[in-house]
Amino acid sequence: MKSFLHQFSPVALIAGALVLPARAQQPAAQPAAVSPEQARAKAIDDLVAANRILADQGVLDGYGHVSIRVPGDPKHFLLARSVAPELVTAADILEHDLEGNAAAPPGTTLFGERFIHAAVYAARPDVQAVVHNHAPSLIPFGVTGVPLRPLYHMSAFLGSGVPVFDIRAAGGDTDMLVKTLPLGQALAKTLGANNVALMRGHGAVVVAPDMPRAVFRSVYAELNARLQAQAMQLSSKVTYLDPEEAKKAQATMEATVGRPWELWRRKVQGK
Amino acid sequence: MKSFLHQFSPVALIAGALVLPARAQQPAAQPAAVSPEQARAKAIDDLVAANRILADQGVLDGYGHVSIRVPGDPKHFLLARSVAPELVTAADILEHDLEGNAAAPPGTTLFGERFIHAAVYAARPDVQAVVHNHAPSLIPFGVTGVPLRPLYHMSAFLGSGVPVFDIRAAGGDTDMLVKTLPLGQALAKTLGANNVALMRGHGAVVVAPDMPRAVFRSVYAELNARLQAQAMQLSSKVTYLDPEEAKKAQATMEATVGRPWELWRRKVQGK
Amino acid sequence: MKSFLHQFSPVALIAGALVLPARAQQPAAQPAAVSPEQARAKAIDDLVAANRILADQGVLDGYGHVSIRVPGDPKHFLLARSVAPELVTAADILEHDLEGNAAAPPGTTLFGERFIHAAVYAARPDVQAVVHNHAPSLIPFGVTGVPLRPLYHMSAFLGSGVPVFDIRAAGGDTDMLVKTLPLGQALAKTLGANNVALMRGHGAVVVAPDMPRAVFRSVYAELNARLQAQAMQLSSKVTYLDPEEAKKAQATMEATVGRPWELWRRKVQGK
Amino acid sequence: MKSFLHQFSPVALIAGALVLPARAQQPAAQPAAVSPEQARAKAIDDLVAANRILADQGVLDGYGHVSIRVPGDPKHFLLARSVAPELVTAADILEHDLEGNAAAPPGTTLFGERFIHAAVYAARPDVQAVVHNHAPSLIPFGVTGVPLRPLYHMSAFLGSGVPVFDIRAAGGDTDMLVKTLPLGQALAKTLGANNVALMRGHGAVVVAPDMPRAVFRSVYAELNARLQAQAMQLSSKVTYLDPEEAKKAQATMEATVGRPWELWRRKVQGK
Repeated sequence: MKSFLHQFSPVALIAGALVLPARAQQPAAQPAAVSPEQARAKAIDDLVAANRILADQGVLDGYGHVSIRVPGDPKHFLLARSVAPELVTAADILEHDLEGNAAAPPGTTLFGERFIHAAVYAARPDVQAVVHNHAPSLIPFGVTGVPLRPLYHMSAFLGSGVPVFDIRAAGGDTDMLVKTLPLGQALAKTLGANNVALMRGHGAVVVAPDMPRAVFRSVYAELNARLQAQAMQLSSKVTYLDPEEAKKAQATMEATVGRPWELWRRKVQGK
Repeated sequence: MKSFLHQFSPVALIAGALVLPARAQQPAAQPAAVSPEQARAKAIDDLVAANRILADQGVLDGYGHVSIRVPGDPKHFLLARSVAPELVTAADILEHDLEGNAAAPPGTTLFGERFIHAAVYAARPDVQAVVHNHAPSLIPFGVTGVPLRPLYHMSAFLGSGVPVFDIRAAGGDTDMLVKTLPLGQALAKTLGANNVALMRGHGAVVVAPDMPRAVFRSVYAELNARLQAQAMQLSSKVTYLDPEEAKKAQATMEATVGRPWELWRRKVQGK
Repeated sequence: MKSFLHQFSPVALIAGALVLPARAQQPAAQPAAVSPEQARAKAIDDLVAANRILADQGVLDGYGHVSIRVPGDPKHFLLARSVAPELVTAADILEHDLEGNAAAPPGTTLFGERFIHAAVYAARPDVQAVVHNHAPSLIPFGVTGVPLRPLYHMSAFLGSGVPVFDIRAAGGDTDMLVKTLPLGQALAKTLGANNVALMRGHGAVVVAPDMPRAVFRSVYAELNARLQAQAMQLSSKVTYLDPEEAKKAQATMEATVGRPWELWRRKVQGK
Repeated sequence: MKSFLHQFSPVALIAGALVLPARAQQPAAQPAAVSPEQARAKAIDDLVAANRILADQGVLDGYGHVSIRVPGDPKHFLLARSVAPELVTAADILEHDLEGNAAAPPGTTLFGERFIHAAVYAARPDVQAVVHNHAPSLIPFGVTGVPLRPLYHMSAFLGSGVPVFDIRAAGGDTDMLVKTLPLGQALAKTLGANNVALMRGHGAVVVAPDMPRAVFRSVYAELNARLQAQAMQLSSKVTYLDPEEAKKAQATMEATVGRPWELWRRKVQGK
């Protein structure tokens, strides 16, 4: 077969540079030999893109938020000030500490639920990205206690279990928001070592070792919920992935996260 | 942290001016030190935007209408003449009184159901904005009598109850339209002090102290209905917000209405 | 109130000319004092628009077709040659007679199911426009025999009943297509004096006295089916419009068909 | 009736050339008197279009893939390297053999599941195009064993049956991917002589004698699944096409595949 490189138009070559290297198929690793400023700039760039991707994919609407731990500085994370995800720009990103504090000019409103992110980063050294969403198909599972389970290989990361956090246990009658550090810690405790926890009467928190996987897990948790509800309507006998299948499928599929990540990034370019 | 203001591009600064001040997070208050003409112009602008937002969000289609009380003049409200919501412009807005009369050039068709708005404004001095919609997911609740209840914090405003108006009680066999003042008064009586009333075999009326919250409540009532139906299919045991949670969550969430309002306004700019 | 005319920008004035006159609120009547050529040109224009509107509204996809009786010539109707609705242009429109014949250049493929239209126009002198669609939400009703009934005022035109045509009765084991005049006559017989008939394992035929109402009925039959299925899942006790409500609501709502018609036409301009 | 040819604008004439000839109504046959290079170029062009069409139609997302047998060379097929379907360009297409090998520059990642295509082409000399998808509505059928059956004429090609491949039978606890030739052969064996096979906890494989029909079958299998689930919720008594109806309807409908194929191609032009 002829070398295909010379068939690339200039546009395709630029596109090809995004997909060609085998490492595009692996989860985005920490770049080697990149300065802290470059790593930080990439983290901010991924964070802004993630906000727009999740809005574009129907996981976030005017509400919800995404964060990323500061590369090389585990005690801080990046999260926008209080603004709709689709409107987030690099200029909106603020550095927070693990108690939810952020230095910001007067008049800036921080997210009331920054404590979700703070507490998860403190409890989970393996987590580098966090999404808090009100993804629609997840809500019915959170208010019925029907266990969300992996229906297919794309949502295998649900295999370890999806606990449900009920804020009433930790806070009695509240406004449902995780707006203090103790409430965040209660949520993180419920989440445990899992990838997703539902929040009764509220939404979900999704965690991952990097931003592409945090976005991937948010998208496919929502889709799994929608399809699981359909399956349960069709029949009382639904076959889920068994634990071994879930473990293997998660490893395989998450190694390919570069494929949808590039597609999703392109869809929101210019938005 | 560096002042982030100087990182704003001119475009971002203009956008930032919309989201930066803390007061953007509160429900739109009556502007201080603004002339009556400016207040009226803002009300018309919000009204035109609300029409387009609700069409964009799938709450309105070719039918339905939105109104706002004239700032500083409780005996009048602004409502378009009879035209599809997406096509409403400032030039279509007419001032109506609380009996549904409006001065308009010959040949102008008023909305047959302007009496919904007239009667609600007369009965509810606290209400400054009214939406009448045929939002799809609400229709099944109105024709089955299954109570619409707040599934999550976003629809906490449903917590006081969602009465169902059946026009047959007030008008016998009708064409289903609230096209007289007595029928509007019967609807307002059913609505009582609540935020939403369903209209059997027709749609719903949604009321609020300002336009952003009237739009917010319309969007999230529709979404709650959709998700509640899904939850009820999943399980016979659904946990709703309890009354205290609903009260607190409504207060908290509605204080953030500026966040989605700005997003929704931007989505319909240029449409 | 000031005259609002002078507030119209030129664009709004042009738009206003479409919505301002009260007669826009009535079903499109036969134009008075218009030449046969003008009437025919308008019929073709409405027909092309209807094709695109119904595709835009999700009622038609690559399949389905729309026709209109030739103004002033009840023995002929206009229907495109075999092409996807979204691609129909004036140049594709062919004049057919009531036996399904059409003069066309060699190599032109006519719609195999033109006999649906031919037979309906022959059987129903009151009908001036016909839609044949595979609207998704209607299919489940056609294959289960669950009666489609008017859930709300928008679909009151279903109130006379929605018969189901099963082609097996007329044609034994067929390919499901009404591709002969006898089969079309069997379908027209099942339709009777109603506005909609479902076709088991196929789709539906929708008829009306003019094109705007044929489109309106197609859109709202599909939506009614979707919402009726939702209502039936919510509860075994669903309240439909009673016969008197349906009669009155149909008259009232169909008098307003100009409102959505103008909106729908604008949405497909330039497509 | 006047000859309509002269009414064609130049644009319409070019469009007309795509739809006018009767042969556009038949499945795309092998072009007569076309060189091997032209046939190959057309195959690649159809393959790139099919990828984009299936993404546009919601059958594929960031995952899934499409292939076509090399015209005149039954031992080879064309399949892209590992990239999201929407991003596939001609430059991404690689020639594979029936064991899943492909010559490619270093660093190119092939699809792990190319063995689906390889094994199907080896087992099915009648098949010229293959789609592997995770179409959402199909997933619940694959995990419940509820038989997918043709609800209407559009999905008559399901009439021969839709087997379900459970990879556990062939491979025990796997990551769910058909990533070896033996697994591909097991899938092909389950598929047998049918047009569609579901893959438990994964998705589906769809096969056809040409690309337009492979796309058609993918789109309508997904839609049939969605509507069949709705029908089964409405009633326990659902009427499907009987075997004779299915056979006849499949022949008739698939002869018209040129109609939606041209529409779908136009929708993705420029994307």
